[in-house]
Amino acid sequence: MITLASDFGTPYPAAMKGVILGRTDARLVDVAHDFPRQDVRSAAFWLREVLPYFPPAVHLVVVDPGVGTDRAALAVRAGDHALVGPDNGVLLPAARALASPAVAGDASAPDAGIEVFEVEYDDAETESSTFHGRDVFAPAAADVHEAGTGSFESLDRIAPVDDYADLRFPAPDLDRDSGAAVGEVLVVDGFGNAVTNLPGDLLAGRDAVRVNGEHAPVARAYAALAPSERLVTVGSHGNVELAVNRGRGDEAFGVSVGDGVRVTW
Amino acid sequence: MITLASDFGTPYPAAMKGVILGRTDARLVDVAHDFPRQDVRSAAFWLREVLPYFPPAVHLVVVDPGVGTDRAALAVRAGDHALVGPDNGVLLPAARALASPAVAGDASAPDAGIEVFEVEYDDAETESSTFHGRDVFAPAAADVHEAGTGSFESLDRIAPVDDYADLRFPAPDLDRDSGAAVGEVLVVDGFGNAVTNLPGDLLAGRDAVRVNGEHAPVARAYAALAPSERLVTVGSHGNVELAVNRGRGDEAFGVSVGDGVRVTW
Amino acid sequence: MITLASDFGTPYPAAMKGVILGRTDARLVDVAHDFPRQDVRSAAFWLREVLPYFPPAVHLVVVDPGVGTDRAALAVRAGDHALVGPDNGVLLPAARALASPAVAGDASAPDAGIEVFEVEYDDAETESSTFHGRDVFAPAAADVHEAGTGSFESLDRIAPVDDYADLRFPAPDLDRDSGAAVGEVLVVDGFGNAVTNLPGDLLAGRDAVRVNGEHAPVARAYAALAPSERLVTVGSHGNVELAVNRGRGDEAFGVSVGDGVRVTW
Repeated sequence: MITLASDFGTPYPAAMKGVILGRTDARLVDVAHDFPRQDVRSAAFWLREVLPYFPPAVHLVVVDPGVGTDRAALAVRAGDHALVGPDNGVLLPAARALASPAVAGDASAPDAGIEVFEVEYDDAETESSTFHGRDVFAPAAADVHEAGTGSFESLDRIAPVDDYADLRFPAPDLDRDSGAAVGEVLVVDGFGNAVTNLPGDLLAGRDAVRVNGEHAPVARAYAALAPSERLVTVGSHGNVELAVNRGRGDEAFGVSVGDGVRVTW
Repeated sequence: MITLASDFGTPYPAAMKGVILGRTDARLVDVAHDFPRQDVRSAAFWLREVLPYFPPAVHLVVVDPGVGTDRAALAVRAGDHALVGPDNGVLLPAARALASPAVAGDASAPDAGIEVFEVEYDDAETESSTFHGRDVFAPAAADVHEAGTGSFESLDRIAPVDDYADLRFPAPDLDRDSGAAVGEVLVVDGFGNAVTNLPGDLLAGRDAVRVNGEHAPVARAYAALAPSERLVTVGSHGNVELAVNRGRGDEAFGVSVGDGVRVTW
Repeated sequence: MITLASDFGTPYPAAMKGVILGRTDARLVDVAHDFPRQDVRSAAFWLREVLPYFPPAVHLVVVDPGVGTDRAALAVRAGDHALVGPDNGVLLPAARALASPAVAGDASAPDAGIEVFEVEYDDAETESSTFHGRDVFAPAAADVHEAGTGSFESLDRIAPVDDYADLRFPAPDLDRDSGAAVGEVLVVDGFGNAVTNLPGDLLAGRDAVRVNGEHAPVARAYAALAPSERLVTVGSHGNVELAVNRGRGDEAFGVSVGDGVRVTW
């Protein structure tokens, strides 16, 4: 099985699929092709949340603002999974989650269980320097799949590498004793839910908190409040999420990606 | 085969696919993941129109404004098909169409051929209370598929249920003798075609009708009129549709979902 | 394998998939369903660029502003591939590329290797006259797939045809000696890159050119320039492309589809 994720929209992912299907009969599953354009951190967040629900697979990821420059191409082994994509950090949070799901939310976890390889290619011989998804990463993902997650380093153009770009989500500042936590908005989903880096257990046993100084009820479900009412909940990723029943939390709380969120109680 | 439909956008459906593929090798087919957010009626309409074209399958449907509340999860047997989703009515019009395609358009048809079951789950033990698509419905759809459409009630947590939410589309008011019919716009598709609940045979043999008092030609094809010209046609679902050749019918006729449509001749 | 491409958005493509899966177990791969509405030329361009990356397959294409009129339905054999869609030219550029990839970019190439057939249908017996994708083209694509690309003319309702709509992209006007080339914008992709019909080799060995009279650097990669800087590059299709690093080339160069582009050096 090979999953595909990118910021390409259409029809570029279809060219990647054509290339892959010329090399393997693997099942293909789209994760998303509408990640925010060239936003490596958002893609890394969603991949970390979604990929651990898959059975062992090769995950092809192309969010690649540095395409055509000298940034490397990587293949990462993570538990029974492999990831293939550009060396800009986008693979690492998901790789850590796949290698050790229990520590997925811990920004200080070591990279136990991860092995990082470089996929060598010659840009001068590549068909294009603007579409490595098709010309470099898709064939590499197919080849890794065919070689097997456990043994793809036997491929000619794969070599271990020690130095690669990492990406860590910012750690929140928690002061549980004084009843305050400061974090930030990591992503906003399509419903408008603002997902923070604050751990959901901050809300355990509370009926309400203050978010950036204003009162907000804590709810287990969006529909626990009347339509259009603001609420704070634990999202499906386990983090504190700012939401509105049948509305957009980002607008109601006045926050965007990267904005600070101070929760007090 | 398992089809998937939701209002999730991306990447949430991928998490559902991962969960399913951890339990079954079934073919997965996306119906749509961009249904209007939390609009149970629109989703129910489209599913009723599209699902009957599929061979026997399990249809996973998650348009679920009540996620995390005490609304039940359902599995419905309909002919050789099964549907899995929330107990808010969204499954029922499609289930009736699948059980008895000939009466799909008849809002008064009995529920012959449909059997409704509750999928039991413990919300306190569920991984999240905001993403039952991943944590409740996806595993249930996979399990129903593996057990078989004909025998899934053998599953431990499946039990017959008599009381469930239904959803009926409004019946039009037809006065064929005096040449008038009053209905409403059920949905607007991506082209801007306004699909009404009026039966297409009202237009048989007519060159033109009046829509909300204004003249409109009847055409078999959009391109029978010049570009930008308004027309009335029988849509692919068999209903009267307000359209514009290479334009948006909803704007040209000034109608939105739920608006009344009076056709006279 | 059957690929699907249309301007339908959702959920209409799912009805086509249901029809196909009632007739064949073929793998289905989406190319795109968000081609610009009823824009035959844009769809033809993207299909010509993407389909040659696929292994042998049947390609179902429905961008069909003439649906329900007397335009014919076609099946085209192109090398080891087949294409099925409306007789409006949309299939031909891709068919030529599939039959003879080496001349894909040559607008004057003969139709060597292409055989064109009409798929006969009776519009009066078709379920709808507004959704031939579901009622005419999807069953035809499934039947062509089952009969085999090499022998589908054995099907009852398939007949060779000599007269069919073609579509040729405009040829650029190149004056290499005097350092000037005049072309036009063929499409704009989702990133905002404006793809022209000018051959990429015009840029070989140059550091900069003038585009419509204004200076623009030539770069191998978007990221060779600072964010928001304009550049000219050779796109993944081999043509001259007007772009901006992490921005929209169409806006920065002030061009839309069909606009003239004069490159001088």
